[in-house]
Amino acid sequence: MARRARACYLRPMRTNGRGDRDLRKIALEAGFSKHAEGSCLARFGDTHVLCTASIDDKVPPHVYGTGAGWVTAEYGMLPRSTHERMQREAARGKQQGRTLEIQRLVGRALRAAVDLRALGPRTITLDCDVIQADGGTRTAAITGAYVALVLAVRSLQRSKKLAGDPVKRSVAAVSVGIVGGQVCLDLDYAEDSTAEVDMNVVATGDGALVEVQGTAEGKPFPRADLDRMLDAALEGIARLKALQDLALRVG
Amino acid sequence: MARRARACYLRPMRTNGRGDRDLRKIALEAGFSKHAEGSCLARFGDTHVLCTASIDDKVPPHVYGTGAGWVTAEYGMLPRSTHERMQREAARGKQQGRTLEIQRLVGRALRAAVDLRALGPRTITLDCDVIQADGGTRTAAITGAYVALVLAVRSLQRSKKLAGDPVKRSVAAVSVGIVGGQVCLDLDYAEDSTAEVDMNVVATGDGALVEVQGTAEGKPFPRADLDRMLDAALEGIARLKALQDLALRVG
Amino acid sequence: MARRARACYLRPMRTNGRGDRDLRKIALEAGFSKHAEGSCLARFGDTHVLCTASIDDKVPPHVYGTGAGWVTAEYGMLPRSTHERMQREAARGKQQGRTLEIQRLVGRALRAAVDLRALGPRTITLDCDVIQADGGTRTAAITGAYVALVLAVRSLQRSKKLAGDPVKRSVAAVSVGIVGGQVCLDLDYAEDSTAEVDMNVVATGDGALVEVQGTAEGKPFPRADLDRMLDAALEGIARLKALQDLALRVG
Amino acid sequence: MARRARACYLRPMRTNGRGDRDLRKIALEAGFSKHAEGSCLARFGDTHVLCTASIDDKVPPHVYGTGAGWVTAEYGMLPRSTHERMQREAARGKQQGRTLEIQRLVGRALRAAVDLRALGPRTITLDCDVIQADGGTRTAAITGAYVALVLAVRSLQRSKKLAGDPVKRSVAAVSVGIVGGQVCLDLDYAEDSTAEVDMNVVATGDGALVEVQGTAEGKPFPRADLDRMLDAALEGIARLKALQDLALRVG
Amino acid sequence: MARRARACYLRPMRTNGRGDRDLRKIALEAGFSKHAEGSCLARFGDTHVLCTASIDDKVPPHVYGTGAGWVTAEYGMLPRSTHERMQREAARGKQQGRTLEIQRLVGRALRAAVDLRALGPRTITLDCDVIQADGGTRTAAITGAYVALVLAVRSLQRSKKLAGDPVKRSVAAVSVGIVGGQVCLDLDYAEDSTAEVDMNVVATGDGALVEVQGTAEGKPFPRADLDRMLDAALEGIARLKALQDLALRVG
Amino acid sequence: MARRARACYLRPMRTNGRGDRDLRKIALEAGFSKHAEGSCLARFGDTHVLCTASIDDKVPPHVYGTGAGWVTAEYGMLPRSTHERMQREAARGKQQGRTLEIQRLVGRALRAAVDLRALGPRTITLDCDVIQADGGTRTAAITGAYVALVLAVRSLQRSKKLAGDPVKRSVAAVSVGIVGGQVCLDLDYAEDSTAEVDMNVVATGDGALVEVQGTAEGKPFPRADLDRMLDAALEGIARLKALQDLALRVG
Repeated sequence: MARRARACYLRPMRTNGRGDRDLRKIALEAGFSKHAEGSCLARFGDTHVLCTASIDDKVPPHVYGTGAGWVTAEYGMLPRSTHERMQREAARGKQQGRTLEIQRLVGRALRAAVDLRALGPRTITLDCDVIQADGGTRTAAITGAYVALVLAVRSLQRSKKLAGDPVKRSVAAVSVGIVGGQVCLDLDYAEDSTAEVDMNVVATGDGALVEVQGTAEGKPFPRADLDRMLDAALEGIARLKALQDLALRVG
Repeated sequence: MARRARACYLRPMRTNGRGDRDLRKIALEAGFSKHAEGSCLARFGDTHVLCTASIDDKVPPHVYGTGAGWVTAEYGMLPRSTHERMQREAARGKQQGRTLEIQRLVGRALRAAVDLRALGPRTITLDCDVIQADGGTRTAAITGAYVALVLAVRSLQRSKKLAGDPVKRSVAAVSVGIVGGQVCLDLDYAEDSTAEVDMNVVATGDGALVEVQGTAEGKPFPRADLDRMLDAALEGIARLKALQDLALRVG
Repeated sequence: MARRARACYLRPMRTNGRGDRDLRKIALEAGFSKHAEGSCLARFGDTHVLCTASIDDKVPPHVYGTGAGWVTAEYGMLPRSTHERMQREAARGKQQGRTLEIQRLVGRALRAAVDLRALGPRTITLDCDVIQADGGTRTAAITGAYVALVLAVRSLQRSKKLAGDPVKRSVAAVSVGIVGGQVCLDLDYAEDSTAEVDMNVVATGDGALVEVQGTAEGKPFPRADLDRMLDAALEGIARLKALQDLALRVG
Repeated sequence: MARRARACYLRPMRTNGRGDRDLRKIALEAGFSKHAEGSCLARFGDTHVLCTASIDDKVPPHVYGTGAGWVTAEYGMLPRSTHERMQREAARGKQQGRTLEIQRLVGRALRAAVDLRALGPRTITLDCDVIQADGGTRTAAITGAYVALVLAVRSLQRSKKLAGDPVKRSVAAVSVGIVGGQVCLDLDYAEDSTAEVDMNVVATGDGALVEVQGTAEGKPFPRADLDRMLDAALEGIARLKALQDLALRVG
Repeated sequence: MARRARACYLRPMRTNGRGDRDLRKIALEAGFSKHAEGSCLARFGDTHVLCTASIDDKVPPHVYGTGAGWVTAEYGMLPRSTHERMQREAARGKQQGRTLEIQRLVGRALRAAVDLRALGPRTITLDCDVIQADGGTRTAAITGAYVALVLAVRSLQRSKKLAGDPVKRSVAAVSVGIVGGQVCLDLDYAEDSTAEVDMNVVATGDGALVEVQGTAEGKPFPRADLDRMLDAALEGIARLKALQDLALRVG
Repeated sequence: MARRARACYLRPMRTNGRGDRDLRKIALEAGFSKHAEGSCLARFGDTHVLCTASIDDKVPPHVYGTGAGWVTAEYGMLPRSTHERMQREAARGKQQGRTLEIQRLVGRALRAAVDLRALGPRTITLDCDVIQADGGTRTAAITGAYVALVLAVRSLQRSKKLAGDPVKRSVAAVSVGIVGGQVCLDLDYAEDSTAEVDMNVVATGDGALVEVQGTAEGKPFPRADLDRMLDAALEGIARLKALQDLALRVG
């Protein structure tokens, strides 16, 4: 801790005076969307992601006939969610590698929350659309998609289409990185752009790991840094869990 | 008016007790987006369209070298903006005919507001993204895009990149149709689905026509109906003009 | 009328000495194609559109199981139908917005002629391919496609696949615009390029409106102009109706 | 000849009483198209191919800077040129293998007629669009495209953009096959569908070979058959050469 | 023969001292691939093509329900199989005309070897992937694919899924051309690039023709050259037949 | 270690009697390809990946003008590299998410090895094509691509196009997972399919981390497992480093 305090003298304060292990201002607005079975507008500072959960009574071929269901995700960014306008993927005619990679990650993360067999032969699609981007869109997407997913499952329960609870555990995600030599939690765009190491951690509410993706930006990093980043990320995820519970009025 | 009142006895009231020539609850929230040079969240009842204006110092080939600028539009719908989830156009690999048709309409409409020569050699792209749909997304898009456009032009003026005012006139748009034999203004989705005739009118704040698109749904309609629909639409557009001025703090 | 006569002094005569409310030389050649169930080569001056009607015993998903049929249209231009060669849409890998917009218009227009329920569970596809273009390809397409449609329906009747007549009314289309301040009917390419307002009107043989699309090119137009253009267009459509009847040997 | 006569007793006469080495009724209508620099509607019986030649002052990268020009071809079929309607390649989003193969063949064939260096740094694109198909569309395309090409070159000469004559030799093409054991020239669709061997021959007016493509349909064929088919094809090409000269008013 | 000997004095020896009618060093390595039902790495000098045969119990629509099977082929090149790196077709989003043309040729050639009715309702797909290219990839592909096909059929026989032998005859292919005025067999890339005429011949082991494709590169060629090229090609194919038998341990 | 030994009694031996921390049989065949500037066939057991390095004197826009170079990667699988034939991505018209994700990973990994500024304004493209797949294709690709990269850099040095050495450090990659409760190194396909946790680690020869991607397959995993997997992976990478040095004849 002493070391962290010292670092604050050596480099500029984080935006809004955040401490290194502070999350940005988080808001999870459940039920944002009129039409979707479940929805949540997840705001991590200036990053705003609209997550909707749609239920379909079909399943993809690889689970068809097994009795199990499926959970999948799609991700998109509005063209002017970013500082510079991006070309619309629909106009370009294909989704970029980054988009596909993120939606595969979000899908895997949410499937870790669900007992697909208990879900029954239906698909829940989580659409995560970035309304405004300021770093950490994929972690906001996962955190908000969990809320949308739970609401969609509740709608199934309310309409008696589902008896038990296929949601086995909560999942949330946060980014963490090394910026100016210091471990920082929940990077905004400016921090992310200058980070030496960038990591996304998806974990359950009680701290079990679902996905860990750490990448050196340029220079390889020692294993000890991985440990320090994991410490910070798991702290952040515990706090996100509490906010998810609040949004879902749990407990 | 007597005639309209009578109609109210003969067929179900409009949603929210609207009169036949009432607009839905309209909200034009200027400056909704952090990154865009101009933006407006246009809400026509439950139809919510985020309009952003992005300025680029390039122009398309057909005006290149003429000194003039260009105004263009793109349109998209979030997959779950609608009652049933739609497939993402980016995933499908192409934009549907309806999308292309709407964005061509929005672009033409906004170009009618602008002196492209006075704009100078730059392109303003108006992205109109439907966050939630309940009928009339194209008319909300045009009405909101006008606000975003004016704000983008003001940002050019503030940064001294533009001396004069290339915005020559305001434009707004509204739908009108014949539902149950009655002319109704600003149709919501349920009305639009059952309308016998469906018309979109784009006009300037002082009532000159920019675009008129009327379509019989099934049964051709007499020319007198066209006149009655135009009356209602132009009334609506005058009211939208006042709301645009308010959002832009004009006058 | 005096006003129109005067205009002739003030601006150049129309090509071929046409009066403002004259159609171009129209030829509707029924049965042009050997293979199609119905066909018509529609010539509006130098605009030549080959319209074929193909019958398929399948229907699209949204009418499947309802007992009703469907009428749809596709539109294309040969690469060198135009003054400058255009890139082939098949080579480009997608249809342009204009193409999709026109084929949606043609489909809607022809559906207005047909009782889809009486057609029975089959699809009639109207292919409108522009062999040579000189303005007004979409209106020639609709006018010719009606002839092809009727011939295809007759072939169904001849082969006893259809008892009644699903064609409830005729449809035809014509363009009209304001060129040099004057209302002109059936614009050719040179007129269309310089028109201040451009309108396409689809109507039935007895003058009911099916579709009205009017667009200001640059400067908004007063509502009175809309009325004058409609007058001219409906006159033209009455004449096209007579030519359709002749081609179909009706009456 | 005796042998051929005997065959006529053993198997059904060809359509229209054609002899085995007779071409179908051929018509080469030069200057069919208003806009193109050169054009020809080539009719081989019920096969009708519109060939247009377009001149562009650009050249593709692989000849850029060499001073030479380029000749290329594109091929398409109208959706209802065939007995059954085919899906439009523009709608499908890509050209089929058969289309690409044919347009590569047509391009190679026409380049054999031209001294690309004498053509100068310009591209001539030959669009061959099948209006109606009844077998042999690629050979009609090549034969008609040659006429369009010569007309385009003449237009360059007339406008003094070209001094010499880059057309070194004429090319034409014809199909030939073995049907019911008998060599038949210029197969129509019905013959082509039942042919045991199918061959397309492109040759110059004086009988030198440009391209030979022979394919066994199912059963391999002896080399002697190749010789008999070549005899017939070269006879046919000599007759096509005479018809090309007539269309071009040569000699 | 005298003429050929003389030619050797007049022009540079072929690479590796090959005589004009010598094949390159050929190696057909059967069973190269662990997963495929049949496979063969075909090496024609520095041209290396991996051919695999995959069996699928489905058939394409045009043979569905007839009891017959199907044989088809796909062709690809690794991006750096060539001297200059080529763009990956998967990244480009479509297969080039050359690719489609070659895979259509390979499919036709292999179908000539098979009695599709005796194969039963299954599809054999021959994937021919060029690991390294030095001219003649399509002929190496056909020659190797035949070996892979036979091995796949044997695997069906071993597992008792097939009683008889659907392979009616062997097929192989070789290129031949006129280089420096001389007929040369099995051209490598350097020879192919400078050939005046280029021909690919597919034939059965006993010399019946399956496909002949001869193309003048620039200058048309006399019919006598076609004959000389065929002589050389059929000699080469007889030798390839012996190597196929060896690889398959036939006889 | 005692614990690992015990596990061997409780669950089936690994294929080929491998111990839990043994790599498969690794072979790195440098210079496999005739045309590429650098190449390596990397075999990890039955997984065979051909890696080629191609040098291009252009750079992508985001480094253009900075003097720096770029390193990028592309990844593909032959259709029958897998147990079941996969559809060819070139035929499908797009690369799958998994392909894009892997090639992004390989590119990032190799850029960590290179000082892009010292490379100078050129691009090295690493094509990693899976000839045969049995698990761990991305880790074999990275390990082999490093060898290809070094060879390509050497070719630049030999031809005096590059003075210094832009390769700052070696990189290699290996997979590790938890199978039947036990940490296992370098998973083959059968192990990968049943693993509870699957991790890919990219690291430098001296054990600094470049990328860590760990994914729970179904059930979240405790942080302690991450540590155990990292231990095993870094051991494996040290051994791969020695094999890379051998292939490159270093030291």
